[in-house]
Amino acid sequence: MTQLESARKGKLTAEMKRVAKQEGISQRKLLNAVKRGIVVIPANEKHRNLKPIGIGEQLRTKVNANIGTSPNDKSLAKEKKKLKVALAAGTDTVMDLSIGGNINKIRRELLKACPVPFGTVPIYQAVVGKNLVSLGEGDFLRAIETHIKDGADFITVHSGVRRRAIPLVKKREMGAVSRGGSFLLKWMEHNGRENPLYENFDYILDMAHEYDCTLSLGDGLRPGCIADATDRAQLSELRTLGELQKRAFKRGVQCMIEGPGHIPLNQIKRNVELEKKYCSNAPFYCLGPVVTDVAPGYDHITCSIGGALGAYYGINFICYVTPAEHLKLPGIEDVREGVIAARIAAHAADVGRGMPKALEWDKKMAKYRKKLDWNGMIKTALDCGKASQYRKSSKMKTDACSMCGRYCALKVMK
Amino acid sequence: MTQLESARKGKLTAEMKRVAKQEGISQRKLLNAVKRGIVVIPANEKHRNLKPIGIGEQLRTKVNANIGTSPNDKSLAKEKKKLKVALAAGTDTVMDLSIGGNINKIRRELLKACPVPFGTVPIYQAVVGKNLVSLGEGDFLRAIETHIKDGADFITVHSGVRRRAIPLVKKREMGAVSRGGSFLLKWMEHNGRENPLYENFDYILDMAHEYDCTLSLGDGLRPGCIADATDRAQLSELRTLGELQKRAFKRGVQCMIEGPGHIPLNQIKRNVELEKKYCSNAPFYCLGPVVTDVAPGYDHITCSIGGALGAYYGINFICYVTPAEHLKLPGIEDVREGVIAARIAAHAADVGRGMPKALEWDKKMAKYRKKLDWNGMIKTALDCGKASQYRKSSKMKTDACSMCGRYCALKVMK
Repeated sequence: MTQLESARKGKLTAEMKRVAKQEGISQRKLLNAVKRGIVVIPANEKHRNLKPIGIGEQLRTKVNANIGTSPNDKSLAKEKKKLKVALAAGTDTVMDLSIGGNINKIRRELLKACPVPFGTVPIYQAVVGKNLVSLGEGDFLRAIETHIKDGADFITVHSGVRRRAIPLVKKREMGAVSRGGSFLLKWMEHNGRENPLYENFDYILDMAHEYDCTLSLGDGLRPGCIADATDRAQLSELRTLGELQKRAFKRGVQCMIEGPGHIPLNQIKRNVELEKKYCSNAPFYCLGPVVTDVAPGYDHITCSIGGALGAYYGINFICYVTPAEHLKLPGIEDVREGVIAARIAAHAADVGRGMPKALEWDKKMAKYRKKLDWNGMIKTALDCGKASQYRKSSKMKTDACSMCGRYCALKVMK
Repeated sequence: MTQLESARKGKLTAEMKRVAKQEGISQRKLLNAVKRGIVVIPANEKHRNLKPIGIGEQLRTKVNANIGTSPNDKSLAKEKKKLKVALAAGTDTVMDLSIGGNINKIRRELLKACPVPFGTVPIYQAVVGKNLVSLGEGDFLRAIETHIKDGADFITVHSGVRRRAIPLVKKREMGAVSRGGSFLLKWMEHNGRENPLYENFDYILDMAHEYDCTLSLGDGLRPGCIADATDRAQLSELRTLGELQKRAFKRGVQCMIEGPGHIPLNQIKRNVELEKKYCSNAPFYCLGPVVTDVAPGYDHITCSIGGALGAYYGINFICYVTPAEHLKLPGIEDVREGVIAARIAAHAADVGRGMPKALEWDKKMAKYRKKLDWNGMIKTALDCGKASQYRKSSKMKTDACSMCGRYCALKVMK
């Protein structure tokens, strides 16, 4: 039985109990949310030692860190370090997007070392090292099966990329920027056939159902620049994702919806509303969004702006963007910065939504600040290490900070 | 004649012509905005070689960098470096908040080297090295006079901090966190008298009028934590600032309103609306706002989230916050990071507001990206140096980036 099916039968699972406790909400409320498909608990039966979390409405906003090799950097050791750093920085989930080296081995090793929900994109497995256009339907489906059986807690399937979208994508400034999306568009155009992940969606549901792998319905047509945001290609895919979500829900398979991408501030609210409307309020999992194209090297910041606003309006799960985005494969420090920036966005949204635990955290920091209690401030900081390092580098021996010294407003007011 | 008085007489100044050209709006439109007090052009007659800019509605969102010594770091050389770095990073204005060393000398040297509008906070001059509570009214006013005569294009005066606010501040979680605000509160409580900058506001207007120094009405009662946001102390001061703005406007003195501070996402829109309502749509100059208290070491990011959303709703001028905020006096690299983060916020807001020049910039980046034209991308980046450094470090010899290599979606789609 999947979490969704258990909820339908009113049966509280161990995972639900854990999540309800973490979030400080009643078990009944959580069970009801899982039952409605507005909360998912990605927890593949095969993933040992998993600490499950919940993603969706009424819960703390979660963040994901993408790691993985590339054809230009195939080091498993480096990806293991990235996993460690991402976990230490407080990511809620990790996705392995490896497309270089022995990706079966890499995925299995990373999954084994990962105590948080672990996601993958099986289509890469099918395509890497092969001649894309000559792949058969079975190649795509076998990759999905392998990942599910390996224990992936959630997998991205780009089932919403339809053949009819090809002319819409060609009209765009940027075309398609999703790897999975571009693979499928090329395959469909070359073979004159429909997307095999759409055609075989029921079969994919059966596979996901067997191990309770959560489907993350990929946005293969996400806009790759501000000028393409919320365009027909994007929205037509979103409508398809809404239909597929209903099929998954009916089948008892947990499901999230992936979202853009590059979206300007004025379109974020509408994007969230459309996802909730088309997709029956299923959890919304967004890459950013980044709110401008012009800041390569700082896309963790453009992502934190869009992610914060989006999560305030209802994005439930923010996929981090690192400073390396649009420029290179992220390094270890990029991973750390990306997780922190996404966590800031998620927390700022939770504060804006008035979530009691989030507000308490901020109040605690304010209390230590007023007392000029530096140990308290550092302990309470989202990144204690960074706060501590700054404080130390100021070499202050009094309780003031080096900005105002004895002219500190808090000292003046005492 | 001040810019405001010229506009009233329908006389286009050289500064207005320059600003209209920069912004790509008609001279008539700009003149009308200056006349209504919804745009200011801070340009002290005594500031030689100034390249004036406009701040306010319908214009590009501007950013300010605060620099200045502290009692713990009095080096003029370091502040000069900060000025250079801030200018190179693209700040629109600079404020000198020095409270350490020979602050007259520091201010004059920095002003001389500063081609962009230069702001100061004269109350520091009055207080530093003195016994605060025994200062006379004249001490405060003389400091203001000195700064205006030295050529400050805009000065912060905390004229809105009223004696009646003292009990409101005492009820807060954090009290007052503005240096100027705390000085005045302590002075008023000790001396049992009203704020001299409020009592002598007409005299301050006369002084500002003489050299067309723009008044930036300070928010001495800005909230210092999320829990104090939009409270009675803050709003009562904002109402007073609205009255003072009307008096400045009547006197022909240009005027901006300073704003918070620590504001959660859900209160930003309301804060902007209240400023516009109480203060006759005068330009709104905000410190951030930062949207959570828990991220010391990353307050350039919390500021960019709040600043972007605020500027989207109508903040016209974002005062940067550096990663060092709440921890120490910013170093040179903090200044650079602070300016970049604030510029990202300002630009993201301008994109969201649909400003044609902002949208063009993003489109240009998308065009280069689609072509995988790295020189074009780097030239177009908000921080070319950072983008270039990332690209170089990836050691790619092909036109792809090291994230996807030959699996690059843009290459697949070609």
